Amino acid sequence: MSQSEILTPTYEIGTTSFYESHVRPVVVEFLGTTILVFLVCMFPATSSTIYQSAFVYGFATLFLIVSFGDISGGHFNPAITLGCTVAGALSIPLSVCYFFAQILGGMLGAAFVRAVYPLKIYKTIVGGSTVLNIMQGMKPGWGVMTEALLTFIIVLTFLHSVVDKRSKLAPLSVGVSVAACSFVGAFPTGGSMNPARSLGPAIAFSVYSDYVDDLIWKYHYIYWVGPLAGTLFAALMYRYSKT
Amino acid sequence: MSQSEILTPTYEIGTTSFYESHVRPVVVEFLGTTILVFLVCMFPATSSTIYQSAFVYGFATLFLIVSFGDISGGHFNPAITLGCTVAGALSIPLSVCYFFAQILGGMLGAAFVRAVYPLKIYKTIVGGSTVLNIMQGMKPGWGVMTEALLTFIIVLTFLHSVVDKRSKLAPLSVGVSVAACSFVGAFPTGGSMNPARSLGPAIAFSVYSDYVDDLIWKYHYIYWVGPLAGTLFAALMYRYSKT
Amino acid sequence: MSQSEILTPTYEIGTTSFYESHVRPVVVEFLGTTILVFLVCMFPATSSTIYQSAFVYGFATLFLIVSFGDISGGHFNPAITLGCTVAGALSIPLSVCYFFAQILGGMLGAAFVRAVYPLKIYKTIVGGSTVLNIMQGMKPGWGVMTEALLTFIIVLTFLHSVVDKRSKLAPLSVGVSVAACSFVGAFPTGGSMNPARSLGPAIAFSVYSDYVDDLIWKYHYIYWVGPLAGTLFAALMYRYSKT
Amino acid sequence: MSQSEILTPTYEIGTTSFYESHVRPVVVEFLGTTILVFLVCMFPATSSTIYQSAFVYGFATLFLIVSFGDISGGHFNPAITLGCTVAGALSIPLSVCYFFAQILGGMLGAAFVRAVYPLKIYKTIVGGSTVLNIMQGMKPGWGVMTEALLTFIIVLTFLHSVVDKRSKLAPLSVGVSVAACSFVGAFPTGGSMNPARSLGPAIAFSVYSDYVDDLIWKYHYIYWVGPLAGTLFAALMYRYSKT
Repeated sequence: MSQSEILTPTYEIGTTSFYESHVRPVVVEFLGTTILVFLVCMFPATSSTIYQSAFVYGFATLFLIVSFGDISGGHFNPAITLGCTVAGALSIPLSVCYFFAQILGGMLGAAFVRAVYPLKIYKTIVGGSTVLNIMQGMKPGWGVMTEALLTFIIVLTFLHSVVDKRSKLAPLSVGVSVAACSFVGAFPTGGSMNPARSLGPAIAFSVYSDYVDDLIWKYHYIYWVGPLAGTLFAALMYRYSKT
Repeated sequence: MSQSEILTPTYEIGTTSFYESHVRPVVVEFLGTTILVFLVCMFPATSSTIYQSAFVYGFATLFLIVSFGDISGGHFNPAITLGCTVAGALSIPLSVCYFFAQILGGMLGAAFVRAVYPLKIYKTIVGGSTVLNIMQGMKPGWGVMTEALLTFIIVLTFLHSVVDKRSKLAPLSVGVSVAACSFVGAFPTGGSMNPARSLGPAIAFSVYSDYVDDLIWKYHYIYWVGPLAGTLFAALMYRYSKT
Repeated sequence: MSQSEILTPTYEIGTTSFYESHVRPVVVEFLGTTILVFLVCMFPATSSTIYQSAFVYGFATLFLIVSFGDISGGHFNPAITLGCTVAGALSIPLSVCYFFAQILGGMLGAAFVRAVYPLKIYKTIVGGSTVLNIMQGMKPGWGVMTEALLTFIIVLTFLHSVVDKRSKLAPLSVGVSVAACSFVGAFPTGGSMNPARSLGPAIAFSVYSDYVDDLIWKYHYIYWVGPLAGTLFAALMYRYSKT
Repeated sequence: MSQSEILTPTYEIGTTSFYESHVRPVVVEFLGTTILVFLVCMFPATSSTIYQSAFVYGFATLFLIVSFGDISGGHFNPAITLGCTVAGALSIPLSVCYFFAQILGGMLGAAFVRAVYPLKIYKTIVGGSTVLNIMQGMKPGWGVMTEALLTFIIVLTFLHSVVDKRSKLAPLSVGVSVAACSFVGAFPTGGSMNPARSLGPAIAFSVYSDYVDDLIWKYHYIYWVGPLAGTLFAALMYRYSKT
């Protein structure tokens, strides 16, 4: 794979200016992650509606990739960005910019949730934070394993469906993989698979709520360690299967 | 962008007669909005089935865009029409015609709901009206913010997916964006994102029901101010990112 | 439109033999309607799961059109067949054969439901029959109106999405239109929009069950009059908008 | 049909090396079945969420076919593999390799469920096993009939949508057919339609749980006899309709 291919973000063909090849993609990743995290965190998930949130997550992923995939590749997730970088489909400087854009976007999206709800509702849904289900006996190790396996699945799907460009249905494929993994992960860990989606509401909830749920921060590392492990495994598997 | 491009509705290529370029699109917008508002308002939403209505809204948007998108552009929503006009993808005279066609369609669609239900059921579902959830502590400011942010998302998706014509999956993209936003908006404001969808049932319910719920009209402005603000922001952002 | 076009079923290009142009399409309509009615009637719908059956109906429509649309046009519904005939997209002899194939398919599909369930479950779900919700105050006139309007919507969608061949997403469009209409029709009438889907389980339930619910037959005409009226309106509207 | 066509797995065009034509497809079937069974079995299905599991099953099928369909054909199910073999679309040696890869993948996927849940939850969901609903009066004969008819439907859909390559929507078609059949089968038998999906969790649950549910093994043959019968019927029907 040539250097120029690595420097070009996925989907991008024949870009010329620095603005189009670097500024717009980063701005779009920021905007897309803001929208994604806002929608997922705003959904008033309770134990009876928890599975509907999987549709929000999957649908938002789908329309964001269709809308912005040709500009930035459609990541909106540090795990996907890391996977593309390790797989050789994104340059390292651009991936670092993507990472910070996604983290900031996640924080802004989660902050907007506070802007649309009164404090009572905001606290009821814990600001949309992902929390380990310790009530049901989940322990951190299981949480890390859950997030690692589910992130492995969506990163592998992204690499095979979008990066390989084999199918017109790529956005649908990634969208339903996120929905399916969010369905199964909703109960044990909240089904994050995206550090930006977990960090944003954790910070926003700590800032905007007078009551801080210690559990959010105590087990927050799960949403970094799990996705990191799953992504590395998926990206390395993809890379070596190609050569 | 040339004048002729601005005068041509989205998706329309090589139209010649005034009938095809102006009459048919307006008729189709009227018919499509009638169908959309009828289906969304007829759904017997209760607190336990409220999230199923998001599927009705999203699915109806999807099949209407596939069916009629090549004739009129597939708006069925004054907010989308305003967005396309501001973004330079629709002429102002045609957008005014679209607007009135959509408002009338929304009223007819909401009136049909009365035609299929006995009064008792009709009153139970408030004729399909969107009402601010003041029971749960929502206040008008939050309602406007909710509608503004959600409309911003669907208009941005429409402009990037449909107007840019980048994807064959554009109707799916817009459909699931409406579904996702309807999911998260169902609880606080009913997730309208469409003044025609809110005005129609408000009028129909006032006409057909002996009991008028004051709250419908008291907070009705939310469903105009919110979408208007969100649409302008999305369309201007789209327009300036293009130049 | 030439005679040869009228004689050719939708989607069929360059067929030569009588077997391929007439026998296979009729067999496929029989088989497809059997599968469609079997799945929809087998779903154990209760008041809490009634909306899930809309997914079964819509999904089954989608995969049957993708699988068999190029052979027969993918109707599986006498209303669709009538609509295509009136719109001039199907010859009258073939449409008559389609009609009987669909009615027989609906009966076989409904009979299979009895083959997979013990009598107790079979009676609980009334063999998958569509019944007017008189418990909630629905009266026949409203039922006819409901079925007419919903059938109007799916036939119009079919004619614009499939017959016009404008979109690769046609099967998805028809599938989600059936799902959306089934969602809103589930509560008042069962959301049939298809006489074969209503006749089949009505006969099967009368044959296999020792207990005959009189209401099934008393209001059965709703499921013929409503779809017939809606279909004629949609097909004539489509036909005149084309010329 | 020539010998070379039979030897080439579906979707595969112009492969040359033994690695690409035989090793990769088998590895991909193993990996895909692992992911499929893991997601379906991990979903915490209870009587109120049982229908959500149909989305997981259908969505997983969809994204796996989009991701891996061009490498192996996208079976992930011994029934689909048998169907393709009988229909003449897969060589016998390769189909035997697929079979063992799928069985092993199902076992690994089911084992991973134990890795993400504490024993209490794992036992509550019976490790994701499919169990005949004898509580509601289902008897083995009905269970076999259910699995046979549903497997018949998905295999027929696969052969017509994927093997015939008639539609870009093939992965969507197969995905929603699995979802629809899983919806209707969830209540009586669990809606397996896939021996690898039933064998894996049955073994894993027997190994990892101190309590062995005898019913899992007593009626396990249902999930082999039913799919086998349905598949043979579908594949022979497909084969003879083609000649």
